[in-house]
Amino acid sequence: MIVCIDNISLGQEDLNNMKVNEIGEFELIRLLSKTLSDNYKSNELNTNYNEIVGLGDDAAVWDVPAGHQAFTTDALVNDVHFDLRFIDPVDLGWKSMVSSQSDIAAMGFRPLFTTVSLGLSGNEEVDLLTKIYKGIAYASSQFGGKVVGGDTVKSETLFISISMLGYDPSNEFRANPLKRSSAKPGELLAVTGSVGSSAGGLRILLDNTGTLPQSQQLIESHIKPRPQIDTGVWLASNGIQCAADISDGLLADLAHICEASKVGAEIKIDALPVDTDLKSIFPVDWEELSLSGGEDYQLVFTGTKESIDKAISSLKTSVTIIGEITDDYPEIRVLNSKGLHSNYTSSGFDHFANT
Amino acid sequence: MIVCIDNISLGQEDLNNMKVNEIGEFELIRLLSKTLSDNYKSNELNTNYNEIVGLGDDAAVWDVPAGHQAFTTDALVNDVHFDLRFIDPVDLGWKSMVSSQSDIAAMGFRPLFTTVSLGLSGNEEVDLLTKIYKGIAYASSQFGGKVVGGDTVKSETLFISISMLGYDPSNEFRANPLKRSSAKPGELLAVTGSVGSSAGGLRILLDNTGTLPQSQQLIESHIKPRPQIDTGVWLASNGIQCAADISDGLLADLAHICEASKVGAEIKIDALPVDTDLKSIFPVDWEELSLSGGEDYQLVFTGTKESIDKAISSLKTSVTIIGEITDDYPEIRVLNSKGLHSNYTSSGFDHFANT
Repeated sequence: MIVCIDNISLGQEDLNNMKVNEIGEFELIRLLSKTLSDNYKSNELNTNYNEIVGLGDDAAVWDVPAGHQAFTTDALVNDVHFDLRFIDPVDLGWKSMVSSQSDIAAMGFRPLFTTVSLGLSGNEEVDLLTKIYKGIAYASSQFGGKVVGGDTVKSETLFISISMLGYDPSNEFRANPLKRSSAKPGELLAVTGSVGSSAGGLRILLDNTGTLPQSQQLIESHIKPRPQIDTGVWLASNGIQCAADISDGLLADLAHICEASKVGAEIKIDALPVDTDLKSIFPVDWEELSLSGGEDYQLVFTGTKESIDKAISSLKTSVTIIGEITDDYPEIRVLNSKGLHSNYTSSGFDHFANT
Repeated sequence: MIVCIDNISLGQEDLNNMKVNEIGEFELIRLLSKTLSDNYKSNELNTNYNEIVGLGDDAAVWDVPAGHQAFTTDALVNDVHFDLRFIDPVDLGWKSMVSSQSDIAAMGFRPLFTTVSLGLSGNEEVDLLTKIYKGIAYASSQFGGKVVGGDTVKSETLFISISMLGYDPSNEFRANPLKRSSAKPGELLAVTGSVGSSAGGLRILLDNTGTLPQSQQLIESHIKPRPQIDTGVWLASNGIQCAADISDGLLADLAHICEASKVGAEIKIDALPVDTDLKSIFPVDWEELSLSGGEDYQLVFTGTKESIDKAISSLKTSVTIIGEITDDYPEIRVLNSKGLHSNYTSSGFDHFANT
C-alpha cells in the first residue's frame, strides 16, 4: 500500500519530536538525507572520484581511476555494541563510522564512500536518528567516506550496519596493503597511541564514577575515538607490511595477526603505552583493560627495528615498541618484570561464547 | 577474554549440528569462509579485478581499472523480510544476494564484490548459517558479486546486511547509468518479465494452499528470484536512461521514479504482464498483487517507442509496455478498460507506517 504523507506541513523541528512510524519511511529518508548533506563538508580528499549518482537511487555511481580499493563492513547492535543511556547519539554516529574508517586505515588506505543500513522498530524518536546521522556526517567530513547510499528496515533490535570502500591514496598499483598475514618471526611489535583508555572510559561510564577530572580523558577516548588514517597511509608507504586495528582489544587483534601469519608473539606489559589516568583510576585492572579492552582504534603493527624507529621519529602520533613476533605459533606470551605473566593462543576473541 | 577453541577436533558434520555459541565466533567464521570458498565458482566476469587481500583481514583489497562503479546496501530482518518457516535457508541466502544484485542491475552494472554482516543471537544452529552461506555462494557464482568480507555480531534479532559493489562492464567512462531521475513526460513505461508472481507465491505459502500444480511456479518466483543483470546492461547500452528494480512493488518503485524525475505516470492494468496462474488462483486479488506486491526483482524502465520496441525484439527476457510517463507530477493513475481504476501520489512505500 502506498501511503501519502506529502501533505504533512511540518518543519524539521516538529518532525524531530515525532516517532519514526508517525512520519513514515519516505519522510524519514528525506530527513536523514538532508541531515547528511547539511552536515557534510567535503575534505578535498576524494577529488579523483566524481560522483555521478548519489543518495536516492537503486545504487550510487561514481567514476574511478585505476588503483587499489579496500572494502569493509561493521555492524553495531543496540545493547551489545552501544547503550544509549551512556552515549550521545551524535557520538554513536561518529563512532559507527570510525569503526569502519579504522579498518580502512589498517590496510594503509583512505575512506572513500560509505553505505549505512539502519534497523529500526519504528518507535524511535526521529530526533535520535537525525543525531546519529549528524555524527556520521561529522566523521565522514573529518576522515573521508562520504555516505552515498543506505537502507532503512524494520527490526525489533536497533542496529547500524556500515560498509565502507577505501582507496589507495598513492593512486597507483602499489600492491602493498598492510596485511594481517605479513608478520615475520624476529620482527618487532609496535602500537600507536595508548591502549585500554577506551575500555577504561566505558568502565567509568558503566560504574557511574565519572566525576574525577582525570576520568574525562578516558571517557573521551571511549565516546570520541579517531581512526589512524594518516598513520596507516604513512606505514604502508614506509616499509611496514603488517598491521591490524585494535578494535577487539590488543590481545584479540594481535591474535588475528598471529593466526593469519602463523607466528607467535611476546608482549611486555611494562612496555605498554598506558595512560597514567588509567593506572591511577584502575590500579589493579589497568593490565586487563590494556590487554583485552576493545575500541581503542589504534594500530598494532610489525616491522624491522629500523622501520619502527623511523615511524617513531617521523609520525605525529606516538608509537611504542611493545614486544616481538616469534616462531612459536600459536602462542602469545605476556611478560612482566618477573617473567611470564600469562599465556594465550591465537584463536581470537569470541563474541558468542557462553563463558 | 580470549577463548581457546582450537582443540575442538570435530568435522564439519559435527559442527553443523551444534549451535553458534557452542562453537564460538572464531570457528564459525572459519566454517562460513570455507562454505563460501567450497561453493563459489568464478564466472569469469571479474577478470579485471585482481583480488589482493580476501576474507580474513581488516578489509578486502583488489586492484581496479579506471571506470564506473556502483554501491548499494540492503538489510533483511527475520520475521520482517523472511520467515524461516516458509523459506529454506539456502534460498534465503540466494535471495539476500539477489536483492542487492538487482539494485546493481537496475543501474545497468554487474555485481563485483560483496560484504555480508550477520546479526546472530548465538542460539542458531550452525547448519542454518552454513546453508544461508551456501545460497549466498550459489547466487554470487551465478550472477557475480563474490563475498570478500563480513562481520558477525551478536543481536537478539537475526539479520543479514549485504553491501555490494558493481562495475560498468563497458569498462570506460560511459557516464550513462540507468537513473531513477531520467524519466521524461511522453516516454513509454515498460517492465521486464511478469509482475505479482512473487507476492502470489508468498500468499500461497502463508495460506498453506500450495498443493495446486499451478502454484509451484509462483512459489518458485518468490523463493528463487533472478536479478535482471544482462537486461540492465543491455538497456544501459541501448539508449535507455531511466530504470528501477521492482523490489518494493510496481507502484512503489514507479513512485520512486516519479519522485526522482518529478513526473507523473499512467498504467493500464489490462496491459500488465501477469502470470495466468496468478489470475486463476487469485481471480480477485491478482490486480493488487501485481500493482503492490514486492520482490519480483524485474526492471521497470522508460524510453521512446523506438528504444522500447528494440528492447522487445532484442532481449531474451520478455518486455511489456504498461503505460506512459506524464507531466502530472506527483500523480500516478491506474486505468482499466472502464477508465480510472485508482489514483496514487508518488510518496513511496512505507515500511514503518502504523496504518
